[in-house]
Amino acid sequence: MSKFAIGLDFGTESVRALLVKVETGAALATAVEPYADGVIDEALPTSDAALPPDWALQNQQDWLDGMQTVVQSVLAESGASRESVVGLGIDFTAATLLPTTIDGTPLCTLPSYENRPHAWAKLWKHHAAQAQADRVNELALARNEPWLARYGGKISSEWLMPKALQLLEEAPDLYLAADRIVEGADWVVWQLTGALTRNACTAGYKANWHKVDGFPSTDFLAALHPDMTDLYTDKLAGPVVPPGHKVGGLTVEWATRLGLVAGTPVAAPIIDAHAAMLGGAVSGPGTMFMIMGTSTCHMLLGETEVLAKGIAGVVEDGMVPGFFGYEAGQAGVGDIFAWFVDNSVPPSYHEEADSRGLSLHNILAEKAALLRPGQSGLLALDWWNGNRSTLVDAELSGLLLGCTLATKVEEIYRALIEATAFGTRVIIEAFTEQGISVGSIVTGGGLTKNPLLMQIYADVTGSEIAVAGAEQVSALGAAMLGAVAAGHSGGGYDSLSDAAAQMTPSPTKVYRPKADHLAPYNALYAEYLRLYDYFGRGENNVMKTLRTLHSEG
Amino acid sequence: MSKFAIGLDFGTESVRALLVKVETGAALATAVEPYADGVIDEALPTSDAALPPDWALQNQQDWLDGMQTVVQSVLAESGASRESVVGLGIDFTAATLLPTTIDGTPLCTLPSYENRPHAWAKLWKHHAAQAQADRVNELALARNEPWLARYGGKISSEWLMPKALQLLEEAPDLYLAADRIVEGADWVVWQLTGALTRNACTAGYKANWHKVDGFPSTDFLAALHPDMTDLYTDKLAGPVVPPGHKVGGLTVEWATRLGLVAGTPVAAPIIDAHAAMLGGAVSGPGTMFMIMGTSTCHMLLGETEVLAKGIAGVVEDGMVPGFFGYEAGQAGVGDIFAWFVDNSVPPSYHEEADSRGLSLHNILAEKAALLRPGQSGLLALDWWNGNRSTLVDAELSGLLLGCTLATKVEEIYRALIEATAFGTRVIIEAFTEQGISVGSIVTGGGLTKNPLLMQIYADVTGSEIAVAGAEQVSALGAAMLGAVAAGHSGGGYDSLSDAAAQMTPSPTKVYRPKADHLAPYNALYAEYLRLYDYFGRGENNVMKTLRTLHSEG
Repeated sequence: MSKFAIGLDFGTESVRALLVKVETGAALATAVEPYADGVIDEALPTSDAALPPDWALQNQQDWLDGMQTVVQSVLAESGASRESVVGLGIDFTAATLLPTTIDGTPLCTLPSYENRPHAWAKLWKHHAAQAQADRVNELALARNEPWLARYGGKISSEWLMPKALQLLEEAPDLYLAADRIVEGADWVVWQLTGALTRNACTAGYKANWHKVDGFPSTDFLAALHPDMTDLYTDKLAGPVVPPGHKVGGLTVEWATRLGLVAGTPVAAPIIDAHAAMLGGAVSGPGTMFMIMGTSTCHMLLGETEVLAKGIAGVVEDGMVPGFFGYEAGQAGVGDIFAWFVDNSVPPSYHEEADSRGLSLHNILAEKAALLRPGQSGLLALDWWNGNRSTLVDAELSGLLLGCTLATKVEEIYRALIEATAFGTRVIIEAFTEQGISVGSIVTGGGLTKNPLLMQIYADVTGSEIAVAGAEQVSALGAAMLGAVAAGHSGGGYDSLSDAAAQMTPSPTKVYRPKADHLAPYNALYAEYLRLYDYFGRGENNVMKTLRTLHSEG
Repeated sequence: MSKFAIGLDFGTESVRALLVKVETGAALATAVEPYADGVIDEALPTSDAALPPDWALQNQQDWLDGMQTVVQSVLAESGASRESVVGLGIDFTAATLLPTTIDGTPLCTLPSYENRPHAWAKLWKHHAAQAQADRVNELALARNEPWLARYGGKISSEWLMPKALQLLEEAPDLYLAADRIVEGADWVVWQLTGALTRNACTAGYKANWHKVDGFPSTDFLAALHPDMTDLYTDKLAGPVVPPGHKVGGLTVEWATRLGLVAGTPVAAPIIDAHAAMLGGAVSGPGTMFMIMGTSTCHMLLGETEVLAKGIAGVVEDGMVPGFFGYEAGQAGVGDIFAWFVDNSVPPSYHEEADSRGLSLHNILAEKAALLRPGQSGLLALDWWNGNRSTLVDAELSGLLLGCTLATKVEEIYRALIEATAFGTRVIIEAFTEQGISVGSIVTGGGLTKNPLLMQIYADVTGSEIAVAGAEQVSALGAAMLGAVAAGHSGGGYDSLSDAAAQMTPSPTKVYRPKADHLAPYNALYAEYLRLYDYFGRGENNVMKTLRTLHSEG
């Protein structure tokens, strides 16, 4: 009898289930269910009161309901028996933080709190804690906190500490009522198994946990806010375990709801981007994985801990047990192309796209592909959404240079793609120069479907770039965690590298650098680097001055 | 009986006549006639052979036919008697150069030459002599030619010397056959009066003539090309006279063709931009006139000759007899906005424009007007068409900085307008710093109809900016030349300042700087200047590197 694992991929708008064969990783069925309340950024489902700007919440009931629907659906579609499912794995957005009572009851489900926005789960892209993040960063820098260097010298407003501080400052009664603050990933696992653990991936990358040093010190918390000293000891109580660790078995209630067998192993979860790396067959050092969508996350495993400058995070056991997981990022990639297509493409291109039944991206990429490197005469800095790695500066902004009266729409489109490729090359070189080897590159995500973009990345980096073979690369990674939680004796695997060796398909495509593109792109990259340093490292702070002028008045 | 003067404005696509009252300058009638052959840039009217790239010719017969039509038309429309017209003035594009025989017969009218492109009039915007211009500039710099400093250190491919050199090199037999090379302006006057003169405006600004030193030396010509030493002595034979000087009276033939009296005074002509300055009532030092269209020309009179850095030309008697006329320019202004509107505005704006019956410029300006200075967070360098003053560098290119995912179309539109205003401020400051006083500003041209743009220029420069009152400001200037050619005794005026005092209307509008806009624009201007110097003066030559990459391969 074949054995199966189920991966659950909890995204921003929906949850997906993927049922795969444990022996081969072959996908038998997949299903997606949108969250009924979607992203809650205008008003709570329970109230008409407008949320403040930059808020983004989710309804945790959507996670549970959606999960039930999609698991039942893949079981039905595949015909797999309940007994043949050996394990369940989860990936999730992060930091997505839910305040609960001591037994895991979400505060927002209590009648007295249901109309309080702070009682709801704050989604990863809740950006209303920037002021708190600034103060965390200032204080950590002033105190020379040892953990700061592991995050490139700065943490994001999306992470645990700023969100928890915002909760405490703006709703102190709710902070008090929240016996626990739990990542969505860990909360779902808690529901499924009855056991509260903290996965090392979100703990490390979003809550500043370190395998040896633990969380930041109580001294630091006290300096940040006198009422916050219980954050790690109480509100984040629970053991930290690596992704793929078996947290427990399915409870009877959830086995029934999902249509599975009670006791089925449930794995400690992982962040969605990092799940993609696993699904992309990267389970050891030397290969960089890039998940390329609205933004790009670069992940890489190492054998030692290097506090690399400009890298967004290093966490032991954060991705694969036994390795140091390095993470870097580009804050805007697909987002920039989307901005361009929405704001800068004249009607004639729309008409051509309509009449040929193609997307604007297709039309622009088709025209841009006819240009040789350098032909546009344009160069951009890809900072429309700031710069994450290596400058860790959200206040930087985009630049386009070289415009003439003959500049065409597709030339700008290509220059924007090239700029993001240059940004990736900066990150690769930062890793390499600091002793973290990048031998090859594997990619996943929506942008891998753009052959022009992929070829430009290969040409700019001078590396072969493989596109991961799995259609649902994150969900496959989650399913691999489920197989590892089962273990070999339970019909799965004893390690992620064993799982990767058996369960991941070959790349769908490998892009190889074109020899005659290397020299012009090296020349352009040299110019990019010069502008990068000039505008990014304080020599000319015009981008910050413009932000100030933008906000004044 | 009222007395009238007629101004003839020879443009790129058409000729206009304006008949005005001499006493008041009031316009009684105007008429426009497009040139039958338009701009000849694809093939000669006599041949199907394609012209090379960057060529632009005109048919001089169109000038004569058009002139006859429009003069007859304004006479008919106004009811002015032929005897009441006291003088005729002309403005013209330049350098627009016609090769002729010794009696003024255009070479292109001779059957043996009619199929030869080089036998035709090269229009100002014929840009195929860039290689020749480069060599003229290199040689003049190497020889430290005294005239070079009067033109900001560089001459344009549009001017006489490069065009004549191209003629000699590419069609030596035609160069030999051309007894005369004549500006369109002077050739039309030659036809009307039988007298060949050279107006000081085109001679000075386009042919490097100087009132004291004359033309560049024969030594220089010999070094440039051994067969070119006769350029000024023979091919440019004829006295140089200031605009408004009476060249002669209408011949009987032309009096008949136009419907005027033989002997009617005809003035020495002027370049079209400079005519606008006269029509804008600027006839003495202290007031800068800007004619603002696809590009902007800045004109200013001074009492002494200053070899100002970055200024495109200084010519004694070039605009108004007795003064040194200074000219600077911005190579792209309206052109940049047109590029933007054509290439970067998405369909929703087009739909709004259509549904409200407004132009895209109207829609964009309306939205951009709601922004306060600095609010866009954007800053641009207005070099889409290179930089004329003060850098005199056609290889510079446009830059846009400060883009975010929230950047809106109208914000970019406003940033582009602001950048051109900053470019004007650089020119004003260059004049002022070098001792050429700019007390006030008067403007003419199509862009003066954009109130947002005009207000931004006032705010950025901190100056009041008046919009010249005349509808047809160049043609009025030409008519003023006609009135001055007539002289007081002939029913006109003895000087251009007398004519300006009587014949020019009050400004239609005066834009005054808004007090609360000065500080933010000063802050933005400081950033603009820093980028201007960084990219424009050799510290970072990325724009040139990009041009090289653009041209290679």
